[in-house]
Amino acid sequence: MAPQLDGYFKQVDKLSESFIERLGKAVSIPSVSADAARRPDVVKMSEFLVSELKALGAHVESRPLGVQPGTENLDLPPVIVARYGSSPQKRTILVYGHYDVQPARKEDGWATDPFKLSVDDQGRMYGRGSTDDKGPVLGWLNAIQAHKEAGIELPVNLLMCFEGMEEYGSEGLDEFIEKEAKPGGFFEKAEAVCISDNYWLGTEKPCLTYGLRGCNYYSVTVSGPGQDLHSGIFGGSAQEPMTDLVRVLGKLVDTDGKIQIPGINEMVAPLSEDEKSLYEDISYSMANLYESLGSKTGIYADKENTLMARWRYPSLSVHGIEGAFADPGAKTVIPAKVIGKFSIRTVPNMESDKVDSLVFKFIKDEFAKLGSKNTVSVKLLHAGNWWVASPKHWNYSAAGRAVEKVFGVKPDLTREGGSIPVTLTFEKATGKNVLLLPMGSSTDAAHSINEKLDRRNYIEGTKLLGAYLHFVAEEEMKA
Amino acid sequence: MAPQLDGYFKQVDKLSESFIERLGKAVSIPSVSADAARRPDVVKMSEFLVSELKALGAHVESRPLGVQPGTENLDLPPVIVARYGSSPQKRTILVYGHYDVQPARKEDGWATDPFKLSVDDQGRMYGRGSTDDKGPVLGWLNAIQAHKEAGIELPVNLLMCFEGMEEYGSEGLDEFIEKEAKPGGFFEKAEAVCISDNYWLGTEKPCLTYGLRGCNYYSVTVSGPGQDLHSGIFGGSAQEPMTDLVRVLGKLVDTDGKIQIPGINEMVAPLSEDEKSLYEDISYSMANLYESLGSKTGIYADKENTLMARWRYPSLSVHGIEGAFADPGAKTVIPAKVIGKFSIRTVPNMESDKVDSLVFKFIKDEFAKLGSKNTVSVKLLHAGNWWVASPKHWNYSAAGRAVEKVFGVKPDLTREGGSIPVTLTFEKATGKNVLLLPMGSSTDAAHSINEKLDRRNYIEGTKLLGAYLHFVAEEEMKA
Repeated sequence: MAPQLDGYFKQVDKLSESFIERLGKAVSIPSVSADAARRPDVVKMSEFLVSELKALGAHVESRPLGVQPGTENLDLPPVIVARYGSSPQKRTILVYGHYDVQPARKEDGWATDPFKLSVDDQGRMYGRGSTDDKGPVLGWLNAIQAHKEAGIELPVNLLMCFEGMEEYGSEGLDEFIEKEAKPGGFFEKAEAVCISDNYWLGTEKPCLTYGLRGCNYYSVTVSGPGQDLHSGIFGGSAQEPMTDLVRVLGKLVDTDGKIQIPGINEMVAPLSEDEKSLYEDISYSMANLYESLGSKTGIYADKENTLMARWRYPSLSVHGIEGAFADPGAKTVIPAKVIGKFSIRTVPNMESDKVDSLVFKFIKDEFAKLGSKNTVSVKLLHAGNWWVASPKHWNYSAAGRAVEKVFGVKPDLTREGGSIPVTLTFEKATGKNVLLLPMGSSTDAAHSINEKLDRRNYIEGTKLLGAYLHFVAEEEMKA
Repeated sequence: MAPQLDGYFKQVDKLSESFIERLGKAVSIPSVSADAARRPDVVKMSEFLVSELKALGAHVESRPLGVQPGTENLDLPPVIVARYGSSPQKRTILVYGHYDVQPARKEDGWATDPFKLSVDDQGRMYGRGSTDDKGPVLGWLNAIQAHKEAGIELPVNLLMCFEGMEEYGSEGLDEFIEKEAKPGGFFEKAEAVCISDNYWLGTEKPCLTYGLRGCNYYSVTVSGPGQDLHSGIFGGSAQEPMTDLVRVLGKLVDTDGKIQIPGINEMVAPLSEDEKSLYEDISYSMANLYESLGSKTGIYADKENTLMARWRYPSLSVHGIEGAFADPGAKTVIPAKVIGKFSIRTVPNMESDKVDSLVFKFIKDEFAKLGSKNTVSVKLLHAGNWWVASPKHWNYSAAGRAVEKVFGVKPDLTREGGSIPVTLTFEKATGKNVLLLPMGSSTDAAHSINEKLDRRNYIEGTKLLGAYLHFVAEEEMKA
């Protein structure tokens, strides 16, 4: 039986101006987590959420995370957890978002004050945090309010987890989630998880995201002389670490992105016909790629291979070199110690440890071929696993039906090339299916200047979050 | 007939404390040319030289060079030119030095105040500019004074040229020298040039330097995307400029310093038996190399090949990459535009223009092999020619005899791997032989912290400069 949503939708439309006002209030609090001096604003933003949630009748707790590691006595911003409803007859859904934002200064090139929501005549709502992630967080609050004011009961018990350090490494969050997912914890009863903190693939068609690549980040250090040398004095008489390093880095990957380290590509899960067919329908074109690249320097000429290369195949990028001359101008230095940085985006079924040992062996073998008296060392700087959920789980089919109801189209089933580490944390801690259900679109410029959220995405997105709760409440237990 | 120098030498010894005092006064003026705020001190240093030279009875002129290019109204420090003697019966020798110094701050790690001459119990005289180049400049003044006070006539007409911008590119000097070398100019009558602004190869044996390598410095730019990309989102779907750049840079030179660009090594002048024999006697050892490298990562196992590699063969160094991630830590960026920097040290008979065209062609060919859609461009950032003088010229034989007289050993005949551009300027402008006659030793740490000049090098060096003038006056005209 399809849920009756018309009353809810009408109420959202009726309240839409007040929802935009709510977003305006949130954007006006510069809750920049990376800047210690802004910490009081991050805390102020947490208090704003607490007061809004209380006004809606939710049970709310502000949970301290202690002192920020590496600081003397700077407290981490609290995690705001809230519960709306606790009926044993209802499904319990856990949602996540973050209330901190990236840094922003008008001087960086913003057309408007980044901490004042500015709505233009196209309905584009500019402001830091509008799409990442204050809009989606408030979407859940808006959904509760519209239900209340329309006199419609929320069909699920809603658990909320809103953190304030996402843009600065989510310090302390993993332990918190693991603890609260255990028996007796705040998230104990969660039956599925929904995270709204990514973006549509384009601007028209909503999507559900079921996979993320992992990332293993390496440094390779080549050193020789005791200190930097002058190339006039020593050039030609000493082996140069930079010569060795560029020769080794040049062996890692070819121009078309094919990783040259033996054994890496062999670990990739084969492409099934079933999976392959998912790519055909996705609303994406090469013009979209060229627009976002700002050039036509793509590797593949077709949509399917391009998307697969980003989502389901590994990639290797060389990011830069530390210790060499990196400034404008000309300096005749022979750097004594240079550190190349590169990373591999990982996918099923690559095992992180095995990737590491193949990388280490390859670098050492290639370096040995050079016959250099310099020394090399390779280090894993950090590793984050890939994640793939089943898009056939009821959590996804419910979300898919909600998208159809609100937008009149089937959503794209997408993966992403980057990582959202909290996804894996929730999956591991709760053992439940995790859904990524984005609100914003590909043109929102999260992390960049002139970040915005379209009015349509915010208001219809609020409808979508509410509709999702209805459909998820009705889905038969399949998992 | 060997010159009678005993009276002069005795007088130098007698005056040695006052010579050290003179150096102390000079070091106490922080004439840092790179720092606009120190410009008054650079001028003060020029005034100190003028007043000392006048007191010795020299004709002195302080010549303005106009406003420093790139500044509003910052005057360049003047060139101090002086003449001591103008007898038509005597030879005229032109000497060059500079009175400005490198920057220095106690906080950089100096054991003593860099602008206060501190003499330790080993006779090491620490202070910025002690060896580079205030000691050698004052050496000429000391030589004049000792002659005067011993009642010995200076056997040559001495022309002096002391500049105040050497450590900041010798702005304006080339044009000045060219003008003054012409008929009617201050340097018109110069018959040979002597520059004391380099160093002994070691610490015990003096040397005469007859060659310098040139330097052609290049940038190679690879660009593709319109802006930096996130490797999570785009890795695998776009060709990456950094991948292309490291692959091209990796082709330039091998670990043992052999340049891989076809045609470069073929331009190098063949080694004659005569030239080869010069290397055997030079006082240098592999232990010296390893000590200055701070490692045993030399390319050759023997002294001769090591020195030849530094002095008479070309070398190629990769200095770094601009535009890529160069900081500590891990950043998952795909840089949109990366600029590799490398330079080739040039030697006889490499033609600068031909080197450029071989480099440009090689880079373009290697890039074409990659099959990349990114774009590449190569630029020459600057070029300075190599220089080689004949060590058989009377200017050198006179200096060699002076070294034997003062130090009791034949000097090493050396070349240097780096460039001293003013050498070429003097040679071209005057058409005369140029001799590099160093005063300081290899351990003096010019440009570094704890710069020093050994008391022995300063006092015996003053004797050497005076003795050189006597021998050069007596040498038969051969050239």
